[in-house]
Amino acid sequence: MSKGTVVLAYSGGLDTSCILVWLKEQGYDVIAYLANIGQDEDFDAARKKAESLGAKKVFVEDLRAEFVEEFIWPSVQANAIYEDRYLLGTSIARPCIARRQVLIARQEGAQYVAHGATGKGNDQIRFELTCYALYPSILAPWRIPEFYNRFKGRKDLMDYAQKHGIPVPATPKAPWSMDANLMHISGSQPRVVRKSDVRAADSFGAFLSRSVLAAGVPVKVTHLKEGTSKTTPLQIFTYLNEIGGRHGVGRIDIVENRFIGMKCRGIYETPGGTILYHAHLDMEIFTMDREVRRIKQGLGINFSELVYNGFWYSPECEFVRHCIAKSQENVEGKVQVSVLKGHVYILGRESPKSPYNEELVSMDVQGDYNPCDASGFIKINAVRLKEYNRLQNYSFRS
Amino acid sequence: MSKGTVVLAYSGGLDTSCILVWLKEQGYDVIAYLANIGQDEDFDAARKKAESLGAKKVFVEDLRAEFVEEFIWPSVQANAIYEDRYLLGTSIARPCIARRQVLIARQEGAQYVAHGATGKGNDQIRFELTCYALYPSILAPWRIPEFYNRFKGRKDLMDYAQKHGIPVPATPKAPWSMDANLMHISGSQPRVVRKSDVRAADSFGAFLSRSVLAAGVPVKVTHLKEGTSKTTPLQIFTYLNEIGGRHGVGRIDIVENRFIGMKCRGIYETPGGTILYHAHLDMEIFTMDREVRRIKQGLGINFSELVYNGFWYSPECEFVRHCIAKSQENVEGKVQVSVLKGHVYILGRESPKSPYNEELVSMDVQGDYNPCDASGFIKINAVRLKEYNRLQNYSFRS
Amino acid sequence: MSKGTVVLAYSGGLDTSCILVWLKEQGYDVIAYLANIGQDEDFDAARKKAESLGAKKVFVEDLRAEFVEEFIWPSVQANAIYEDRYLLGTSIARPCIARRQVLIARQEGAQYVAHGATGKGNDQIRFELTCYALYPSILAPWRIPEFYNRFKGRKDLMDYAQKHGIPVPATPKAPWSMDANLMHISGSQPRVVRKSDVRAADSFGAFLSRSVLAAGVPVKVTHLKEGTSKTTPLQIFTYLNEIGGRHGVGRIDIVENRFIGMKCRGIYETPGGTILYHAHLDMEIFTMDREVRRIKQGLGINFSELVYNGFWYSPECEFVRHCIAKSQENVEGKVQVSVLKGHVYILGRESPKSPYNEELVSMDVQGDYNPCDASGFIKINAVRLKEYNRLQNYSFRS
Amino acid sequence: MSKGTVVLAYSGGLDTSCILVWLKEQGYDVIAYLANIGQDEDFDAARKKAESLGAKKVFVEDLRAEFVEEFIWPSVQANAIYEDRYLLGTSIARPCIARRQVLIARQEGAQYVAHGATGKGNDQIRFELTCYALYPSILAPWRIPEFYNRFKGRKDLMDYAQKHGIPVPATPKAPWSMDANLMHISGSQPRVVRKSDVRAADSFGAFLSRSVLAAGVPVKVTHLKEGTSKTTPLQIFTYLNEIGGRHGVGRIDIVENRFIGMKCRGIYETPGGTILYHAHLDMEIFTMDREVRRIKQGLGINFSELVYNGFWYSPECEFVRHCIAKSQENVEGKVQVSVLKGHVYILGRESPKSPYNEELVSMDVQGDYNPCDASGFIKINAVRLKEYNRLQNYSFRS
Repeated sequence: MSKGTVVLAYSGGLDTSCILVWLKEQGYDVIAYLANIGQDEDFDAARKKAESLGAKKVFVEDLRAEFVEEFIWPSVQANAIYEDRYLLGTSIARPCIARRQVLIARQEGAQYVAHGATGKGNDQIRFELTCYALYPSILAPWRIPEFYNRFKGRKDLMDYAQKHGIPVPATPKAPWSMDANLMHISGSQPRVVRKSDVRAADSFGAFLSRSVLAAGVPVKVTHLKEGTSKTTPLQIFTYLNEIGGRHGVGRIDIVENRFIGMKCRGIYETPGGTILYHAHLDMEIFTMDREVRRIKQGLGINFSELVYNGFWYSPECEFVRHCIAKSQENVEGKVQVSVLKGHVYILGRESPKSPYNEELVSMDVQGDYNPCDASGFIKINAVRLKEYNRLQNYSFRS
Repeated sequence: MSKGTVVLAYSGGLDTSCILVWLKEQGYDVIAYLANIGQDEDFDAARKKAESLGAKKVFVEDLRAEFVEEFIWPSVQANAIYEDRYLLGTSIARPCIARRQVLIARQEGAQYVAHGATGKGNDQIRFELTCYALYPSILAPWRIPEFYNRFKGRKDLMDYAQKHGIPVPATPKAPWSMDANLMHISGSQPRVVRKSDVRAADSFGAFLSRSVLAAGVPVKVTHLKEGTSKTTPLQIFTYLNEIGGRHGVGRIDIVENRFIGMKCRGIYETPGGTILYHAHLDMEIFTMDREVRRIKQGLGINFSELVYNGFWYSPECEFVRHCIAKSQENVEGKVQVSVLKGHVYILGRESPKSPYNEELVSMDVQGDYNPCDASGFIKINAVRLKEYNRLQNYSFRS
Repeated sequence: MSKGTVVLAYSGGLDTSCILVWLKEQGYDVIAYLANIGQDEDFDAARKKAESLGAKKVFVEDLRAEFVEEFIWPSVQANAIYEDRYLLGTSIARPCIARRQVLIARQEGAQYVAHGATGKGNDQIRFELTCYALYPSILAPWRIPEFYNRFKGRKDLMDYAQKHGIPVPATPKAPWSMDANLMHISGSQPRVVRKSDVRAADSFGAFLSRSVLAAGVPVKVTHLKEGTSKTTPLQIFTYLNEIGGRHGVGRIDIVENRFIGMKCRGIYETPGGTILYHAHLDMEIFTMDREVRRIKQGLGINFSELVYNGFWYSPECEFVRHCIAKSQENVEGKVQVSVLKGHVYILGRESPKSPYNEELVSMDVQGDYNPCDASGFIKINAVRLKEYNRLQNYSFRS
Repeated sequence: MSKGTVVLAYSGGLDTSCILVWLKEQGYDVIAYLANIGQDEDFDAARKKAESLGAKKVFVEDLRAEFVEEFIWPSVQANAIYEDRYLLGTSIARPCIARRQVLIARQEGAQYVAHGATGKGNDQIRFELTCYALYPSILAPWRIPEFYNRFKGRKDLMDYAQKHGIPVPATPKAPWSMDANLMHISGSQPRVVRKSDVRAADSFGAFLSRSVLAAGVPVKVTHLKEGTSKTTPLQIFTYLNEIGGRHGVGRIDIVENRFIGMKCRGIYETPGGTILYHAHLDMEIFTMDREVRRIKQGLGINFSELVYNGFWYSPECEFVRHCIAKSQENVEGKVQVSVLKGHVYILGRESPKSPYNEELVSMDVQGDYNPCDASGFIKINAVRLKEYNRLQNYSFRS
């Protein structure tokens, strides 16, 4: 008798193939679920592989558009960046994948969802907090003693694969966790970035785009020289990836702090996301009131930590997203961007919604601004400092 | 009879030359004070010019070492950055200059300090809050109606100069406020950065340095290929400027929010500061506990806003500097950096003080880390989310 | 010829009566505007007085309902409290009064609004930032040299009053700034609170109310013993004031930090506001998710500082109010409160929207909560601490 | 053969008595450790009981002085308060108790420490994070299936006690977790506070103390009428407890958010802590610069959350304590306090370190403060608001 049905987040790779077979061995019916979030994968081959390994059903789901619109766009609005460097490419993909997985589990009446994330990483948390928030029960084989005691290293997986007719990759993939999606490519092992890569600055001529942001998200990108334009979210983001990728934009080698309490190394390449980060930041400061932005900056830090830690589907993250979206109401205009050899330059910006007032700033036009007012402003700001100083001196003397 | 003695922050340029003569005209004795904070200037010529214009005394003060050690270094420790982009090159120079000016005023028994900053900018505030915090009275001609009504534009200054024998520059300098010092070069007019500049990526081979940070500030920089080493703060910073400058590192064109309430455009080039920003950030995250850094990140934002707004000498900025310095106790190690065509890449890092533990992170070594613990961690983190969800559903139904 | 029309915020007292006459003397037409925000005043008498002093028109406006609904209620939602103690009774009244003043100025085509707030206080700022945000020009006689040089003390005002037929109060009011409105009574002089007051605990039997909060604001208050109920905002707040006042609730004697940079003493009595502060806080923590509240707590601190400093009408305060209102969506339920001799006790609470789950908390019911999960939770939280400790020991030894 | 030695945090009550016997049954040697942190307990009787139940050794440790000086005092400096209401009486006791337990374990060469905290509460976390930070291994029977499956309710404990000769209390104590220490008495069940209690306002005459704070902690308390003075930390705190207790000060009935993700009800009585909270807050605002305090307020919130969640011994809490202590350098002076029927009134304060300047605030003394400066201050603060308004109108029209 079946122990129940499991919807397994299946990647087509060795690990989740072994998990698929192992789950069946344990007595579960397995539905394989493969999310297309822009990674480079032969989805048809993966589907066939899952079927041949005994999956009761296989779902291959194209989530690219919703990934861009519902997960990347809010991150752009938030200027989301973890620990001042990491653009959260993996973090935002997990809730997107898990959400669909839960929907499939409900639709198919499955009792469990399962994933192949390991027990020391962030992804298990991101997967599972999404699932817990949205409901069903979870199987995480890498945390089940029967599983992890059996598969202590890559070799055990290979042996098991051979024994169970699981195709083993000819060129074995890197034995470390990698993630690839529309937003970024990541690898957690140092070797991934070789020195030759970071030096290989592309000599392609400067790229000039004109992106139109409305309410803080891009609505159009135009290549100034070539005249190409993109207008749907998925096209825009794919195009920015292509351009940015050509120039090696957004490659970083960092150490980051996992939610689980460890420091770990991360190598990321986030071309389109890096371009948008800079373009959005520029338009935001150009159009948003200074003090609104100070508060919004804090909310963006909250958002980034929440998303990194797996709390996309939480009351606080919903609240923060709502507030950030509200702050974007006037973030609208055109940003001119140049991308060259790893670097993103902002060349200019214009907006009908900016309080930027050339006349007001000009030293030649006084307008209704009286220089004497600045004296009062400074003197009142100094009242506190003078009292403090008076007291310090007093204390020194006494 | 003299109205008293004024110590004037003198730049050698047209504006402060006119101010010098005008102050004398108004009946003040003027001491000219010229601070060397690394700008490109003929200090001897400036001294002679001030003397010829009637300065009672001239002080040319080399503040470069103290600028690096007492102002740039604390900013590096803070990862100081205003509105996520501006590295505060001008902001930190003002209190350094004004402090010495106050010391001279005290030593010379002067009644006033004066400066040539205009009435719409940030610098007047930074100058004056420093002075108010440290004591004497201030004259700001650009906010004195008699002055600004007389000098309504550049032409008035030129006429006045000619009439009073003030040498007028053959090639008139740009008619906008510029600032140059060790930390950066700034210009607030769009023309300063031409497209050709930002495209002119230097084809110089990749630069590899090995900088040793101790308690959050650099103590040594070594060019890996050339073998050159620098060890004093001033040498280190000058050298990083040279390298960074060659590659166009740290050039930005931004709009920023002035304390005075306006948005204004700023064009900055901060080569050495940009390299150090990235190197320090990397070492900080590598060595500092995650939660300490979250708190320190907030303090760094405080610091940046305070310094931008002119509050370097304030009880709160002193307090924040103290706390930030405390946080740096373990920020020590070597960072390997590559600089190429505008971009700064971190290639690696090592430190005796880092809690980074390769064994702990490794998926092959379990250590005293039990994967099952992660299940508990996730489940407890989900308790709140499940209750929230339970309640939402309940509410939906009722 | 008239210099234009001024709408003067008129209180009926000596100061603004003198200002009214003085403004006329200076050549302005004066419209007197008297806002009823719940202070104890004979409005008819004040109207007649203004007319007799030469006001072109007199507006007496009852703002009590809008004061409660649009200013007090948002402050209750925010748990607004400045420097952990002051409930902002005056701060929130100023924008309410100034808003109507601006509307009258527009309607009457007046060129100016004027107020009698002095040059060292917070109220001038609160008045004027509201006016500047909403438009017209301002006259602040206490900052006009002609005025403040003429009226150097109370005696000058008295002499001027006698000379110009301005009725002088028989018992001269306290020579310090006081403010009274629905929210509170304040006086900035120490004498206002005598020891006998604070000791005079009313022996009235405990008061028990049952207030129903919806979306964070009260919709009904019921006296449990007497059975009395109040349901309109103004009635509710007035009733809570009455009960709280009887028991000396909300009397504080504090030193606070003015925006203008000084510390000053404040004596406040905020009976209804204090009761609501506690009742709302209780319901908020009962119904709101922990992490939402942590973020909302920060926004509440922002709100309090903004309002104290006069920025009610600012983009950032609008933004913060929007976010706080959003956070209140589930703050709904009944709080039982007891008020006795200065103290407010919360006796209990109930809500259909609370995630409080007695079964979950109970030690006798395990539910789907497994005690072992807590072990994992604690161990993972300790990973970072253990690494830190390991490193500290290492460092100690080396 | 022994499984090793366990140092058990022993309370003398039923639960830990059963645990003691059960641990022995499981094959451990048990050292009983009883911390005196001011609870009402017959320590001699408890010692004998532990010995009679088979403890290898018994340690009764008087931690009262270090509890006050090293745990309560830093909390007073921080104005520590969790979720705006809870003064952390239990939270700060746990690391104090656990620290000594670890020291005993080290000294005695024990392999384990054990505690009787349950699996749904905060205390297990506070105990264990302290232990993990400081080293050894932990046994938490209430999370060991063999234990919690055997002892499903109070009845199982009673049966076990009778069977093993463990004295069972004649009047069974309340079947819920209580905690009593110098700082507070807590009980997590509603019945603990009866209505009669909160009404029973003591008619004792007003209490007037004069407490002298130095660097943010009390150094002397004097009863003004009776003339009694206390000067050691333990005496001061005990005396404030006595006075506050007589007046029912600091009794609250709240719902709070546990770290474990649940909301739970808490009934607390914190007399001395409540008095000190108010007295310290008053002196802090009186002596501390406004902006330093804004930053310190945020650090105090950090501190409170960290301590509540069990992170007293963590790098971030150490960092925060260091920063807070730094902020207290000038918090020194005398506060006059009146305590009556549940309420704490601040009657006045004086300090040699306060920047409070009566002359500066006075409206009759102008000093070097010019009212016109306020105009400039307000106008510059309004620049941003006017631009925002201009833009809003512009947008409305277009």
